[in-house]
Amino acid sequence: MSEPRVLILMGSDSDWEVMSEARKALEDMGIASEVHVSSAHRTPERTGALAREAAGRGFQVLICGAGAAAHLAGVCAAETELPVLGVPLAASDLRGLDALLATAQMPAGVPVGTLAVGKAGARNAGLLAARIIARIDPMVADRVRAQRKRMAEEVLAKDAALQAKLSGGKG
Amino acid sequence: MSEPRVLILMGSDSDWEVMSEARKALEDMGIASEVHVSSAHRTPERTGALAREAAGRGFQVLICGAGAAAHLAGVCAAETELPVLGVPLAASDLRGLDALLATAQMPAGVPVGTLAVGKAGARNAGLLAARIIARIDPMVADRVRAQRKRMAEEVLAKDAALQAKLSGGKG
Amino acid sequence: MSEPRVLILMGSDSDWEVMSEARKALEDMGIASEVHVSSAHRTPERTGALAREAAGRGFQVLICGAGAAAHLAGVCAAETELPVLGVPLAASDLRGLDALLATAQMPAGVPVGTLAVGKAGARNAGLLAARIIARIDPMVADRVRAQRKRMAEEVLAKDAALQAKLSGGKG
Amino acid sequence: MSEPRVLILMGSDSDWEVMSEARKALEDMGIASEVHVSSAHRTPERTGALAREAAGRGFQVLICGAGAAAHLAGVCAAETELPVLGVPLAASDLRGLDALLATAQMPAGVPVGTLAVGKAGARNAGLLAARIIARIDPMVADRVRAQRKRMAEEVLAKDAALQAKLSGGKG
Amino acid sequence: MSEPRVLILMGSDSDWEVMSEARKALEDMGIASEVHVSSAHRTPERTGALAREAAGRGFQVLICGAGAAAHLAGVCAAETELPVLGVPLAASDLRGLDALLATAQMPAGVPVGTLAVGKAGARNAGLLAARIIARIDPMVADRVRAQRKRMAEEVLAKDAALQAKLSGGKG
Amino acid sequence: MSEPRVLILMGSDSDWEVMSEARKALEDMGIASEVHVSSAHRTPERTGALAREAAGRGFQVLICGAGAAAHLAGVCAAETELPVLGVPLAASDLRGLDALLATAQMPAGVPVGTLAVGKAGARNAGLLAARIIARIDPMVADRVRAQRKRMAEEVLAKDAALQAKLSGGKG
Amino acid sequence: MSEPRVLILMGSDSDWEVMSEARKALEDMGIASEVHVSSAHRTPERTGALAREAAGRGFQVLICGAGAAAHLAGVCAAETELPVLGVPLAASDLRGLDALLATAQMPAGVPVGTLAVGKAGARNAGLLAARIIARIDPMVADRVRAQRKRMAEEVLAKDAALQAKLSGGKG
Amino acid sequence: MSEPRVLILMGSDSDWEVMSEARKALEDMGIASEVHVSSAHRTPERTGALAREAAGRGFQVLICGAGAAAHLAGVCAAETELPVLGVPLAASDLRGLDALLATAQMPAGVPVGTLAVGKAGARNAGLLAARIIARIDPMVADRVRAQRKRMAEEVLAKDAALQAKLSGGKG
Repeated sequence: MSEPRVLILMGSDSDWEVMSEARKALEDMGIASEVHVSSAHRTPERTGALAREAAGRGFQVLICGAGAAAHLAGVCAAETELPVLGVPLAASDLRGLDALLATAQMPAGVPVGTLAVGKAGARNAGLLAARIIARIDPMVADRVRAQRKRMAEEVLAKDAALQAKLSGGKG
Repeated sequence: MSEPRVLILMGSDSDWEVMSEARKALEDMGIASEVHVSSAHRTPERTGALAREAAGRGFQVLICGAGAAAHLAGVCAAETELPVLGVPLAASDLRGLDALLATAQMPAGVPVGTLAVGKAGARNAGLLAARIIARIDPMVADRVRAQRKRMAEEVLAKDAALQAKLSGGKG
Repeated sequence: MSEPRVLILMGSDSDWEVMSEARKALEDMGIASEVHVSSAHRTPERTGALAREAAGRGFQVLICGAGAAAHLAGVCAAETELPVLGVPLAASDLRGLDALLATAQMPAGVPVGTLAVGKAGARNAGLLAARIIARIDPMVADRVRAQRKRMAEEVLAKDAALQAKLSGGKG
Repeated sequence: MSEPRVLILMGSDSDWEVMSEARKALEDMGIASEVHVSSAHRTPERTGALAREAAGRGFQVLICGAGAAAHLAGVCAAETELPVLGVPLAASDLRGLDALLATAQMPAGVPVGTLAVGKAGARNAGLLAARIIARIDPMVADRVRAQRKRMAEEVLAKDAALQAKLSGGKG
Repeated sequence: MSEPRVLILMGSDSDWEVMSEARKALEDMGIASEVHVSSAHRTPERTGALAREAAGRGFQVLICGAGAAAHLAGVCAAETELPVLGVPLAASDLRGLDALLATAQMPAGVPVGTLAVGKAGARNAGLLAARIIARIDPMVADRVRAQRKRMAEEVLAKDAALQAKLSGGKG
Repeated sequence: MSEPRVLILMGSDSDWEVMSEARKALEDMGIASEVHVSSAHRTPERTGALAREAAGRGFQVLICGAGAAAHLAGVCAAETELPVLGVPLAASDLRGLDALLATAQMPAGVPVGTLAVGKAGARNAGLLAARIIARIDPMVADRVRAQRKRMAEEVLAKDAALQAKLSGGKG
Repeated sequence: MSEPRVLILMGSDSDWEVMSEARKALEDMGIASEVHVSSAHRTPERTGALAREAAGRGFQVLICGAGAAAHLAGVCAAETELPVLGVPLAASDLRGLDALLATAQMPAGVPVGTLAVGKAGARNAGLLAARIIARIDPMVADRVRAQRKRMAEEVLAKDAALQAKLSGGKG
Repeated sequence: MSEPRVLILMGSDSDWEVMSEARKALEDMGIASEVHVSSAHRTPERTGALAREAAGRGFQVLICGAGAAAHLAGVCAAETELPVLGVPLAASDLRGLDALLATAQMPAGVPVGTLAVGKAGARNAGLLAARIIARIDPMVADRVRAQRKRMAEEVLAKDAALQAKLSGGKG
């Protein structure tokens, strides 16, 4: 891992517990990332600048995590030509339905690739970024293939453990 | 009506049919408005500039109408010190639930006063702007009072018409 | 802070934990407030009187917080010419979706500016009231500007802390 | 049918198409009703007066129909000791989910008996009022029993018609 | 309190914690009740019998509490000529939205007066039953009036306590 | 097709347009059915009898279609030992979300196999009944296999038609 | 219990706590089952094979439990001619509404019989499978009848316990 | 446009009206695509093969459009290492909320980048695919930049037209 190729933004530092899953997934894929707390609403200028300058600074993908009226991914998609992935967070009483709709329902012309609400979505944002970067980096492509294989093996191992438990429990 | 005191923004010209209700309500209250099609996502720079310059140009209130992942009001609230009112529009298959959540569920620090989905909300955005401007303009305050009285009289008139119809239909 | 300029009403004293955020935000903006427990349903007469007399008593804005079938803001908007802001509270098993719809979906003619469900909404109601009062009070306008700047600085500070943590954790 | 025993209120004359179902159901049960257009928000004073005076004027039940942030039934329940039935109307883009929650989710202490959204609910409000009045009027009780029997017979007749159609279509 | 005049049914004994609120409210109103665990699905025959025989046994109102696909109130309304009140319970992962829709959305002809989800709804079912029985029992009518007055006084007392706390906290 | 092996019930004859899809699917599978309009609420006694007697009359599966507070399938599942399949219908302003929850969210002990809202669900109820009957009837099993094959071929044919159109459109 | 006749699949071993209810219900009905952790997304090939081979291996019914974008039941229904029952699990922040819609809303041609979200649904999947197998196994049919009777008796016992408690509490 | 670089799949030919927007957007970006009707449920084998072979055949991105229990994108994401974009379609009575949840709420490990429901989402899927392919193709990157500029200009032109209309309407 040398230069960071994915820019991860999140609206609040309280989002870090969830969004660190995206960074971990990228690390697993051998991809360095840069992370910032930067809010669409509280620091619009800086958020705009981070998004606008991302392509020039060599990033390939943006990942934006935000809750409630989650505008961060949309605001960034409006300011960059890079692919933007959005992770809706369950940060309000409405448990992420608000963030999901605010992230996914973008108008024609400004795409955001939206992942699931919460940790599964954060991890998948990292993995989808890896699939995108794999278009240009064979080593990442190898790691994507390995991740898919490993994931399948883990399910098989869990199934084996269940079989052991069930047959053990029965006698 | 001399100088426009309310800035109305909407994300698409197809929103005009609904958002013209806000302008009409303001006209009824003796308040001139300036209207622009300006998208949070398609013209972020210009939208930001319109919001940032609004206070300096003498506007007192911003009204923003948008559908789907309706970020316009939030984006403007992030760029101005003026009160921002948001009108969610039923512009997607989800019929405005998306726009309502994307407009109302703003994070702490950046307030948007959200009205109802659609025409009722657009009209009420104009009337709420009038109530705000009435803080500094007694003539508008008079008109707000008159509107409230007229509205009540209209209900009474409708009730009288219903009574006439029902007694006619019966006797 | 001398005379209270914002009237805060809430339907139950159990709402105080959330609604005190509105009062705190107003205090931050140098605006005194008066607070009452007054229910749209349990004390309709007194609620009506509080709303009707608010303008005459010198208030500039009403903030109403209520949960479930949250009628308080609407009932007050019907009885005053002042701007009314509504805070939906997550006080039922439906977690505030009921209160959000009951507050925001007002019919044409009687506007309520609705904020987010819960604490973020309560704080923002205070800040939106400050933006409204800033129309007539330059000192409040200064504080609104300062709050926006401080909020941005806090995000930057949080980002700096995250960078320190990440580089520390790595290297 | 002599003196009206049920007071039907609705927020707008556009609600009449649906709410006339309540009146028709009451007529079927031999119960006269009085109907008014009276809004919780546009004519709060008159609505309050109608509800407060209803018991004294000899009404036994109130039926309130309203859409969107449907406060009418709740506002009336707060002002009367009579049983209040609420009919949520699909008058907004959210198709009645807003009105259902705003009518049903009343706080402890102020009950509203809520019926289904739309025409089925309006008809059922009339029938439930009849079941209530049947507590004190044996003639209404007879009609309630007859309605239940007739309704069952209609289903049987429809089933017979279907059998005829199906066997005709086949044989 | 002599003979029970309200029949309270609930689908499961785990509903008792919530449904006991209905019984308590009735006791406050001087109305005795009979309570049974009886399921629409697990004991359909007995539930049907309880509903069918309720009028003959002298009951005036049925209150039915159930969660999830809450059919109990509807099933009873189909078997009795008495007014039936339904209390939706938050007994599933969907937190009562399922029970609310399954209780409220009854087809034309078979009315259920639906209350709020959970304890507020259970208490209000008792109070609405009291308002119905008050049509024929002046003593209950007195108690309904007293409850409404007491409830208002409690709100005023809570407001007074808040004022004391706020002024104490300040001065 | 000799003796009917599936009993199809629906709450209203207006449901026939949708529910006839279930009958058609069964006919395609060589399974005769008997259809009745019979309401859980309007004719509870007859509905109960139809369900209770179904096993004795030789039926293998019940299919129940109903809208709104759709209790029909649940009521039948409570009265029979046969497998019961439920089809939620979009018969109210809430477009079938009410019927889906009222059909699917059955309590433990009384299972209903729920299909999709509307025509797709009605057709699938017929096909699922066929898969069940195929356990005991090899001819039906053959038809199920043929239906699966035919369905796949239809998709391939549609794809071929699309390819033809696209290449034709291009040149 | 000899050969397993029901194949239970679940997407993750964390689903076992809920899905073991299905196995227990089957055991109560005298039906052996085979259980596997097998994901529609992580091990698609193996999941497809398990479903495709199920009929040949002598299974009569498939039960599939999955959360979030719950595709497991649908994917299996596409690969087998056996009846497939789906159990939506509340495994995401959206609490099972996502899984319910993803399981129930299958397109015409590929039926899934969907049960309730969570443990009630898992138990009912086992019971519905038993009702299906009872078509060909009289001993299972006996157990289904016994379960229905026992369930009714348990409700009666709970009611008796409540009566004892209430009369004890009073007298 | 030479070799197709994006594979577009849709579950039914009735989806073509919406999904053709994805193809058009790709054409605008100079990217050829291959389109197939292929269902996750009706032709699982072929769908799996198309997804599995996509990388080897030189595709860079998959776009999958489906309605209701929309499994197509998830099923493909399970079978390919390429980035998969999902377009939820409003093909059922639930108007696309089902498809949105079924597409977006993927479990950790198998990412789908989800776009908005309907035509806006289909067009954005094409544009997001272009942003991905622009990582490796400077000509596409140029077109992405041009599209963003053109889109902004169109908004400005619409605003100019509105200004003309408004000033014309006023005089």
